[in-house]
Amino acid sequence: MQWYFVAALLTVLTSSQGILTTLSQSNGEYKYDYATVPFLAEIFKLAVSSLLLWRECKKSPLPKMTTEWKTVALFPIPSVIYLIHNNVQFATLTYVDTSTYQIMGNLKIVTTGLLFRMFLGRRLSNLQWMAIVLLAVGTTTSQVRGCGETSCESLFSAPIQGYMFGVLSACLSALAGIYTEFLMKKNNDSLYWQNMQLYTFGTLFNMARLIVDDFRGGFENGPWWQRIFNGYTITTWMVVLNLGSTGLLVSWLMKHADNIVKVYSTSMAMLLTMILSLFLFNFKPTLQLFLGIIICMMSLHMYFAPPNMLLEMPLTVKPEEEKLVEVSVDRRPHS
Amino acid sequence: MQWYFVAALLTVLTSSQGILTTLSQSNGEYKYDYATVPFLAEIFKLAVSSLLLWRECKKSPLPKMTTEWKTVALFPIPSVIYLIHNNVQFATLTYVDTSTYQIMGNLKIVTTGLLFRMFLGRRLSNLQWMAIVLLAVGTTTSQVRGCGETSCESLFSAPIQGYMFGVLSACLSALAGIYTEFLMKKNNDSLYWQNMQLYTFGTLFNMARLIVDDFRGGFENGPWWQRIFNGYTITTWMVVLNLGSTGLLVSWLMKHADNIVKVYSTSMAMLLTMILSLFLFNFKPTLQLFLGIIICMMSLHMYFAPPNMLLEMPLTVKPEEEKLVEVSVDRRPHS
Repeated sequence: MQWYFVAALLTVLTSSQGILTTLSQSNGEYKYDYATVPFLAEIFKLAVSSLLLWRECKKSPLPKMTTEWKTVALFPIPSVIYLIHNNVQFATLTYVDTSTYQIMGNLKIVTTGLLFRMFLGRRLSNLQWMAIVLLAVGTTTSQVRGCGETSCESLFSAPIQGYMFGVLSACLSALAGIYTEFLMKKNNDSLYWQNMQLYTFGTLFNMARLIVDDFRGGFENGPWWQRIFNGYTITTWMVVLNLGSTGLLVSWLMKHADNIVKVYSTSMAMLLTMILSLFLFNFKPTLQLFLGIIICMMSLHMYFAPPNMLLEMPLTVKPEEEKLVEVSVDRRPHS
Repeated sequence: MQWYFVAALLTVLTSSQGILTTLSQSNGEYKYDYATVPFLAEIFKLAVSSLLLWRECKKSPLPKMTTEWKTVALFPIPSVIYLIHNNVQFATLTYVDTSTYQIMGNLKIVTTGLLFRMFLGRRLSNLQWMAIVLLAVGTTTSQVRGCGETSCESLFSAPIQGYMFGVLSACLSALAGIYTEFLMKKNNDSLYWQNMQLYTFGTLFNMARLIVDDFRGGFENGPWWQRIFNGYTITTWMVVLNLGSTGLLVSWLMKHADNIVKVYSTSMAMLLTMILSLFLFNFKPTLQLFLGIIICMMSLHMYFAPPNMLLEMPLTVKPEEEKLVEVSVDRRPHS
């Protein structure tokens, strides 16, 4: 399977995630406990990975599975980072409004690039760095509030703590991605075995969250396992399956492609969601959305197009003016 | 003299042109006839060019001057194109509001690139085309109306004729630039001799405009030569000198660099004006201005940086994975 096919599928599914989640609400409210969704998605991913590993075990050669504790102990760490991230996210939102929070979220694109370079030691060309910055600029442009919209005065007027938490949030979110990539590429264990470890801890952490919620709520509605499917509709189940599937695709990309591919997928998904919302929810098209889309498309082409395609020129009339420049290029990984 | 020095000077002067013009108004109104400004600027350019040509004639070798009518007859054409352009501009503004008109003005960047390719036969790499589109997107982004601003509903709600005239206006404006470059590079005549021909016709066309204005106004305020300096202040004179100087710099760039360099200069000037306005006229900084500046800076770097600088990567850990790609590159002209 080609990485760009998986990336395109991830874009479509991530985009439908936002739309399905909106459709799963009635009158703008969740009739179900949203915390049950990621828990069930983890169980779905665990089930799919177990099944695929079992199928793999029936063939020869047997899949490689490292079972020593030293390696297994690394798998709860992404869950721990996400736990911290969720709390920082909560702290950020006590200082800044949701528009500012959304705009700051684009910082994650740049921090992912930086951590990719620092922790995974992956080198990017100047052009690729520019493409990453342009991707963040493009997604931000598409989110610029148009005229006539309310609550715009508050943009970037929050206390400094809000921005510091926002930057920390972007770093943690990037770190979780970078760490997962490190984990998946660390050895050539079977992807499904690595997934099983990842999702077992994911399931446990999500279950812990449901239990903590129960204690906080004083068991008002009974324990979580008694009310887990309360208010579930067919759309809610689609949200669960969709979230689970995107998780599996991201995991595949971490093993066979990289974090930058994932960042492009999810950024494109955001734009696709905005385009679909124009039709589905009668949103008004804005000039800034149109500009943002152009910027992101240019960024995509700059990052992934082969350098000779970017620099090649049609034959000029005066070939004697041409100079041959040798450029040493580390091509993008394909799988 | 290096072209980038001239381009930087053009940026600064073009930027001060907008600010000086605003400062030359009192209570938001012109106390002088604005049509006299380009006329006097043409006379200034003609005087400077004559002086420089005269100095050049005293040295040997003598400057090259083609005086045959066939060549001289080409020099009024830019003035004719500008005349048509002014009328199309007027027609556009009867259909669209000034915000939409300003936004459509950025189309000129792309049409200049297209005519540069079509009429001058100059080749650009994919990356340079992307840079040109990004420059137009960047300047447009900086002009996106923020929230709370008035008259935003009218943006892009004009009749189709308005947009057609807008596109025509962008084409004519680009055509005038491209034609002038063709004229200046056509032969190796002295720049000052070419300027003299250009500005003689420029002076005549501007004078004709003043006469037509007089006839339209029924000589209410007397003929133009009697009231030419009415309401002039020291700032008005600075506007004239500034406009004249930018004209001379543009002419130099047409001879020794090209239209794309000019387009970058004037786009950067627009951003510089917006930044200076923040301080001088207490304008509020917007997120879109900040994003626009980043996009334009990236575009500048993409267009002008040597390709090997853009693609070069620090030595990777695994040199055996590197592939050497030969890229044929037509380097940018330097003078």
